[in-house]
Amino acid sequence: MDFSPVATWTLPTTSRERDPQQFWASLSGEQQQQWLQQLQPLYYQIILLYFRDAPDLQERIAQFTYLAYRLNLPIAEILGMHMQFMDEITKQLKLEGRSEELVLDYRLTLIDVIAHLCERYRRAMVEVPEGK
Amino acid sequence: MDFSPVATWTLPTTSRERDPQQFWASLSGEQQQQWLQQLQPLYYQIILLYFRDAPDLQERIAQFTYLAYRLNLPIAEILGMHMQFMDEITKQLKLEGRSEELVLDYRLTLIDVIAHLCERYRRAMVEVPEGK
Repeated sequence: MDFSPVATWTLPTTSRERDPQQFWASLSGEQQQQWLQQLQPLYYQIILLYFRDAPDLQERIAQFTYLAYRLNLPIAEILGMHMQFMDEITKQLKLEGRSEELVLDYRLTLIDVIAHLCERYRRAMVEVPEGK
Repeated sequence: MDFSPVATWTLPTTSRERDPQQFWASLSGEQQQQWLQQLQPLYYQIILLYFRDAPDLQERIAQFTYLAYRLNLPIAEILGMHMQFMDEITKQLKLEGRSEELVLDYRLTLIDVIAHLCERYRRAMVEVPEGK
């Protein structure tokens, strides 16, 4: 599935961009796994770059939330990705003898991403004629 | 505006429940202030009860997110409510000489609330015929 061009990431989402056959619930377990293997690195990069003044951070968040929107991805999947990555980071910090407080800071990243996704849905809903 | 009955809070949201004339952007500044005076205590109660095993916590989150959905409330307003309350809590903790880490824990509450709101929008969008 190709959701290009990249510029689309930053534009508001419309309901006309979605194909229910590409929705998460319509995918096979294998297709879902393939998507997770693409989505996880995207989310992990957002986490790793979040406090580093990365110039393309907003575009990365826009891209990730755009894909989540197109896939009609359950929010629980994003929470799951976050917690899985936090577990990995916690293990690494423990090995290095470093404070695990960084994991608490990354909650801000999750808030940012979910808030962006929520705004995508909110704007897309206003596009749709209410009650029809 | 009466969004009763209470049982509605916990039910999935449909797009047919929304009247654009009640949307946040359609309200006067005064009406928005009146709504904030109702929404803030609801959100504050969710915060205060979040780690206390309150039996009606889920219903409170459902109610708050239902109102936010019906109002088409910008997510930024919820973030603003959260930060305002965190400022008040921080001041109080400082006065009492207590650790401010509690404020970091409340980020989980914000994640929970925004995730619930996002799921409301996501489910309501699937109700609407795509592309029409």
